[in-house]
Amino acid sequence: MHKFILVFSALLTLSSSYIVDFGPVVKATKGSIWPHPKTIVSTNYFRTLRPSTFDFETIGYKCDILQSAIDRYKQIIVVHLRRLRYKADSSYSNKWRNSSEFNGSMEALKVDLKKSCEKYPHLDMDESYDLKISENQATLSAESIWGVLRGLESFSQLLYLSPDGRTLLVNETTIFDEPRFKHRGLLVDTSRHFISMSTLERILDGMAYNKLNVFHWHIVDDHSFPYQSVKYPEMTRGAYHPSMIYSQKDVADIIEYARLRGIRVMAEFDTPGHTASWGASHPELLTKCYGVYTGKLGPINPILDENYDFIYSLYDEIVDVFPDKYVHLGGDEVGFECWQTNQDILNYMKQYNMTSFVQLEEFYIQKLIDKVASLNAIPIVWQEVFTNGVRLPKGTIVHVWTGDRRKLLLKITEQKLPALLSSCWYLDHLSTGGDWVKFYNCEPHDFTVKEDLRKLVLGGEACMWSEVVDDSNVIQRIFPRASATAEKLWSPMNVVDIEDAKSRMEEHYCRMRLRNINAQPPSGPGLCLA
Amino acid sequence: MHKFILVFSALLTLSSSYIVDFGPVVKATKGSIWPHPKTIVSTNYFRTLRPSTFDFETIGYKCDILQSAIDRYKQIIVVHLRRLRYKADSSYSNKWRNSSEFNGSMEALKVDLKKSCEKYPHLDMDESYDLKISENQATLSAESIWGVLRGLESFSQLLYLSPDGRTLLVNETTIFDEPRFKHRGLLVDTSRHFISMSTLERILDGMAYNKLNVFHWHIVDDHSFPYQSVKYPEMTRGAYHPSMIYSQKDVADIIEYARLRGIRVMAEFDTPGHTASWGASHPELLTKCYGVYTGKLGPINPILDENYDFIYSLYDEIVDVFPDKYVHLGGDEVGFECWQTNQDILNYMKQYNMTSFVQLEEFYIQKLIDKVASLNAIPIVWQEVFTNGVRLPKGTIVHVWTGDRRKLLLKITEQKLPALLSSCWYLDHLSTGGDWVKFYNCEPHDFTVKEDLRKLVLGGEACMWSEVVDDSNVIQRIFPRASATAEKLWSPMNVVDIEDAKSRMEEHYCRMRLRNINAQPPSGPGLCLA
Repeated sequence: MHKFILVFSALLTLSSSYIVDFGPVVKATKGSIWPHPKTIVSTNYFRTLRPSTFDFETIGYKCDILQSAIDRYKQIIVVHLRRLRYKADSSYSNKWRNSSEFNGSMEALKVDLKKSCEKYPHLDMDESYDLKISENQATLSAESIWGVLRGLESFSQLLYLSPDGRTLLVNETTIFDEPRFKHRGLLVDTSRHFISMSTLERILDGMAYNKLNVFHWHIVDDHSFPYQSVKYPEMTRGAYHPSMIYSQKDVADIIEYARLRGIRVMAEFDTPGHTASWGASHPELLTKCYGVYTGKLGPINPILDENYDFIYSLYDEIVDVFPDKYVHLGGDEVGFECWQTNQDILNYMKQYNMTSFVQLEEFYIQKLIDKVASLNAIPIVWQEVFTNGVRLPKGTIVHVWTGDRRKLLLKITEQKLPALLSSCWYLDHLSTGGDWVKFYNCEPHDFTVKEDLRKLVLGGEACMWSEVVDDSNVIQRIFPRASATAEKLWSPMNVVDIEDAKSRMEEHYCRMRLRNINAQPPSGPGLCLA
Repeated sequence: MHKFILVFSALLTLSSSYIVDFGPVVKATKGSIWPHPKTIVSTNYFRTLRPSTFDFETIGYKCDILQSAIDRYKQIIVVHLRRLRYKADSSYSNKWRNSSEFNGSMEALKVDLKKSCEKYPHLDMDESYDLKISENQATLSAESIWGVLRGLESFSQLLYLSPDGRTLLVNETTIFDEPRFKHRGLLVDTSRHFISMSTLERILDGMAYNKLNVFHWHIVDDHSFPYQSVKYPEMTRGAYHPSMIYSQKDVADIIEYARLRGIRVMAEFDTPGHTASWGASHPELLTKCYGVYTGKLGPINPILDENYDFIYSLYDEIVDVFPDKYVHLGGDEVGFECWQTNQDILNYMKQYNMTSFVQLEEFYIQKLIDKVASLNAIPIVWQEVFTNGVRLPKGTIVHVWTGDRRKLLLKITEQKLPALLSSCWYLDHLSTGGDWVKFYNCEPHDFTVKEDLRKLVLGGEACMWSEVVDDSNVIQRIFPRASATAEKLWSPMNVVDIEDAKSRMEEHYCRMRLRNINAQPPSGPGLCLA
């Protein structure tokens, strides 16, 4: 094992003193935090942490979320060391112990939760925390449980392997951290391909490791309807297969798994378009087409009272099943070709003085929005609902997914509506090489300098549409590419240095691998010992 | 489980009678062969095959390769059924048994190998086979063991699940098959990221399932040197890490694993560029740079006799360790910046009347080619060696990797040199969506209509450069994208129908999943029950 040192010194040589430009071996940082904290002061003083004896000491409020997090992070710390230890060079001296910068071992991290726990994470949750590791102190404190969760994640990321591979080290560090944006999401489409429960859980783990806090579950779409409704269980006839269904227990398990990690689960049942799979069980919901389209079905038929009864009733259930206050109504890409051929629809429009199909769409969405509002939930809609001119109640969030993001964000926020950004973070858009950089270079606030408008951008989401991903590759495609989005949404606006980010991301992807997230290499040649 | 039928009928409805163009659910074929055979006549008559009692009956020559293949395919057939069976609808009638097209069960496939086995696969091996499954007969026959391997793969792909999910069916079919090109390769770069042995074995499995027959092992490069030489074990100082090394046993295991699947292992030790990692142990091999590059090292220094001693001796070993007759010498992307600054090199060139660095490169490559020829091996070189004007001995293969493939293939073959094509099959070049279609649309013979020139194109290779792939994603990125290359190189030139290919590939990717190859979805929304 003596080669270990040689290898690494060789690599250092490689990346500095060869002329042929073969691109660098991307060097990973040690113990850096992703996403970058708001303020962090690190020193060269360090302490040691022995996973076998180390413990968390709760000195404030306690609750199930805290206990579960402590159990998880203890496990993570043990695994970090166990999986790395044998890779290191045991013959390497442990002279670091004699270093004047070594300040002894750290037996515990005090965890000071200052307020009692909330049950569910929510848009306005407080995620700030203080973390101080010094010679005399090792304390994580936060006003809320959500801050504790974020702080525990940061603490776990500070740890790195000692040069002799026998233990973990942590540099003395002072952090005050809080996110720049409240809504830091990941959309996962489980309709184009089914994604298994265990993969969804790994995705939620990965979100927690990136401080992402909203799982936007695009659960159904044209291609399949895997959600097993309590009221309308027959709708899973639109599922791909009986083994490709989320039961009520599955949904509850995902919500609980996410809750324990401070992640909101926001469901989307996209209408009136993107509903072909609904027709497998309820063709009467969909518009009958005529003319060249005779025999085909279109979007939801918006002129039938009984359709509203059905959809209202489904939304009663959705709001009941998903505890989050926000419900994504979809509303994107509604095609008018079918409505155009249906005489009943044309008559109806005439009767109500509608002169365009946009008005008909507005009519539908308006009713749905009113319904959701009556359920004390807040709607989120894709941008078309806004650009088509639907009057949106105050507080409705407009989700930007295509086109000129700056123009759109300006238009939306000028109308005092809150917005979410996704158009620059489509994970299904692939380019050759380490293409996370394009995600990293997207700044959500570059559409204006006006603070009052900027404030209306609540955050954004990386979107994993699943046309060509399934359990085989979805995690690799999300991580670490969505980590770029996570940092843009968490870290201060001035964290933009790509070279610095590359080194930190190299560590971060490998750290996810240690934790059983099959993250792919982000930037270029290198090694991950996980 | 009654829903099974409903689901599938719903899907059929979905893809035909909804107006909103949400893209089709890609429907998989049942029992189609990838790559498409040269000639195949299928009928609607079918027989049943019970994995628990089915057997192969060898009626010709036997050998270890045959026995191993039979063991593998028996296992594959058992696994196919076991992994699919529970997904099917057991309530579905088994009325197929009463069908007039049902011709009873098939207890065995006779395997008639007509000549004794060769030990190693080689460029000119005979891969043709006849497969006949009729009411009275089920026979695979081939002149050579390599044809038997290809025929067993085809046979295994003909099987599909019966509607009641209880057994496998196979349609009565007559196939005569042989490849269009002799050399159907996959390059895997194990230098930019290390790829583990088990992943390499899965890749070889996947190659066999696609009838690819050359594993081009780009084993070392600038970034790391994982090959553990017998003569120069210190060269692994250029490896990333002691755990990231291929021992002699590992290499032998890969060669054996490949041999049993009819796959050649062709090693590449790229010189004189791409050798930075060699310098970790032997900096004296590399050119010292001066001037602005002082302190840096460049390509192999071609003016030192002792360097040739070293490289010749390494090649003695390479030719000994890798049994294939062909050795890839590399020769691509040699930068001249460093040579330019080295006065010894400039003096040497003057002394020998060399007026350009291309001549110096030629001088080096020429010596290496002569050496390899003296070892009774045949060199393969990247295209630059040819375009730079190095005189190549008859039979040297020129490997096209960039630029205008038609012009290059024409130039090379007009000089009566054999060629390999890779430039249109770079697997590291990513595009959004199901981007295998771009690989599928590349025709290796479209550079000329002259048969004598076309014949000089021996085939090609899909190339998996590993800058941003490692064990987490390399298999997903290769399969099924390299399957497109595999079909272009195996099937007749007129097999070009993309829609037909989409359906067959949908089955094929899912079939690979059944066999533990983590292939990713190729084309669009759909389901794989593996």
